[in-house]
Amino acid sequence: MRYLDERQIKDIAIGSGVLGTGGGGNPYLGMLAAIQAIRKHGDLELYELDELPDDTLAVSPFAIGSPVPYIERVSLNDELMTAFTAMSRYFGREIGAIVSAEIGGVNSVVPLALARELGLPAIDADGMGRAYPEVDLCTFTLYGHGASPMAVADEHGNVTVIDTIDNRWVERIARPVAVEMGAIAGAVGFPITVGDLKRAAVVGTVSYAETIGRAIREAQAQHASPVDAVLNTTNGYLLFTGRIIDVQRRIERGWALGEVVIAGTDDDAGSEMVVQFQNEHLVALRDGVVMASVPDLIAILDAERGDPITTEELRYGFRVGVIAMPCDEKWRTPEGVALGGPRHFRYDIDYVPIEERMASAGTSR
Amino acid sequence: MRYLDERQIKDIAIGSGVLGTGGGGNPYLGMLAAIQAIRKHGDLELYELDELPDDTLAVSPFAIGSPVPYIERVSLNDELMTAFTAMSRYFGREIGAIVSAEIGGVNSVVPLALARELGLPAIDADGMGRAYPEVDLCTFTLYGHGASPMAVADEHGNVTVIDTIDNRWVERIARPVAVEMGAIAGAVGFPITVGDLKRAAVVGTVSYAETIGRAIREAQAQHASPVDAVLNTTNGYLLFTGRIIDVQRRIERGWALGEVVIAGTDDDAGSEMVVQFQNEHLVALRDGVVMASVPDLIAILDAERGDPITTEELRYGFRVGVIAMPCDEKWRTPEGVALGGPRHFRYDIDYVPIEERMASAGTSR
Repeated sequence: MRYLDERQIKDIAIGSGVLGTGGGGNPYLGMLAAIQAIRKHGDLELYELDELPDDTLAVSPFAIGSPVPYIERVSLNDELMTAFTAMSRYFGREIGAIVSAEIGGVNSVVPLALARELGLPAIDADGMGRAYPEVDLCTFTLYGHGASPMAVADEHGNVTVIDTIDNRWVERIARPVAVEMGAIAGAVGFPITVGDLKRAAVVGTVSYAETIGRAIREAQAQHASPVDAVLNTTNGYLLFTGRIIDVQRRIERGWALGEVVIAGTDDDAGSEMVVQFQNEHLVALRDGVVMASVPDLIAILDAERGDPITTEELRYGFRVGVIAMPCDEKWRTPEGVALGGPRHFRYDIDYVPIEERMASAGTSR
Repeated sequence: MRYLDERQIKDIAIGSGVLGTGGGGNPYLGMLAAIQAIRKHGDLELYELDELPDDTLAVSPFAIGSPVPYIERVSLNDELMTAFTAMSRYFGREIGAIVSAEIGGVNSVVPLALARELGLPAIDADGMGRAYPEVDLCTFTLYGHGASPMAVADEHGNVTVIDTIDNRWVERIARPVAVEMGAIAGAVGFPITVGDLKRAAVVGTVSYAETIGRAIREAQAQHASPVDAVLNTTNGYLLFTGRIIDVQRRIERGWALGEVVIAGTDDDAGSEMVVQFQNEHLVALRDGVVMASVPDLIAILDAERGDPITTEELRYGFRVGVIAMPCDEKWRTPEGVALGGPRHFRYDIDYVPIEERMASAGTSR
């Protein structure tokens, strides 16, 4: 177990913005909630899986919906407490720890805040190693663990507990509920024991996000390149440098769908990159050629400061670097690619790991 | 307490078709489920409110969604058992009786079948004295009783428990859940004690439906007019006799919306009646003039046989009688009219009780 202070929470928030691959919501508000909880209750306790009994039951709190309206909302604290209470009431077993279902964006920091509020251990692991726009796209699903019962709550005190035969049904029901609740809602689900997390989770990802955030912070302080710092920390590749010339965005079934078009500068002058997203970035194309795809991570960073830019923050004129980072090995199995690969999102392309794409393109790190 | 046998169940099914005012689903399938339960477990026990302790907790099982696809479905038995189990698990109090939330259509008979399956008393009362297309349009709402926690389940075993701050929110969340579950789902909600039912329910409506159904059956056997038999039993008025010349029907947000146009015959030759519906009939207009509206009951009966016709069964060429029947007094209070009157359904007209409309039109029963 180690303690997390305010600076570490901020590093985690920035780093999980990178791992959020454009989605997962802006972690800034989740960070404020976590810092508020720390100021109220003292530093946060982050546990490794080995430090908790195997039969400890953990649940995952997260924001569900489209990130666009979330910018306007102050906190998900009420929603998450309502959801946690309803989930506990229905499930009827003692909940002993909090784990993140996705490390990307707000959903990496929100569980830390709730853990501190509830006085429960937060676990250094998550169920994706990135962010994904659908509830069932989770390594827990790959290992046969249920997302349900899952409670979804709004800020008024309305809550629904969803209990389904598989994780796809959780997604199918939770999505319209979140839309009806005002596009964004607080959810608590994925009950899983620490013993099962050892096999099914992506381990150490809270610390991984912190490492990325710290690398950006230190590079900024040292006037080094924060984009290079991210690439070094994540074994990532710089795909493209340029200036945003167009952003298309629409809300459909509660998701933010669209694409951003970037005109190349520097070494990429004369080329164009399109990054398509469904909350998260799915595919990056350079002059029409696929350069990277899910489940690998595609992030858009501010070219100067290295800060991650979420899809709802993308604006005409921004100077950006587009990077790709290898996903966790769990996503590279046939089952992982089937669940979270490009064909799940209706792209008629095969998944090729980013290292292979770069090697065949003659690009080295 | 009295026992209900198969013939009485059939009478209740036919009578609740009349009280269903075009909606509530075709009671035939619910009737089959109830008869099946009786054949398996013995005659059904129907209790008056005075025969049960005041602190007995009752819940209401019902079908929610649009009635159109329901014709294709065999039974709601699995859905309702799944919903009942989830509701009990979340609510955590012993459920001692079953009451109908609406007496119209399938939802009058389905609770009898579930009561028999569970071995619980069925209560001779309901929460509407008719059918309505929205969960919160219920006399229980008028008396401050919650529809939640309410469980909504599909035939696969998926279930959601909805717990809200008011009954309108139950409707808002349950509707898209039912749509996602395939347009029709089984629900169990409205936990209420027998003591509260004495004030908040419409009492004796299962027997009332049975009386209407028996009157139709006996008139058919005696070659008397079944339509007249319904009018005599319900203090109703014959609004129109004619032949269906057009039916418009569309599904929107899980409701069957539309209207039927009827060309007058007999005394009504040369006139035209339009009946507009949202699952249930809302307003009847003769040559553009409002003749009857919710909360009073508007039913369309087969002109010869007197059988009620649901909106999904309306077909070009049918010879029909359109009748109106007074609603329960609970709906005629200012609160009742606000909740279930024409303005709730966006009609810019005042509610006028059917007796007054008929008196001012010079029509007597």
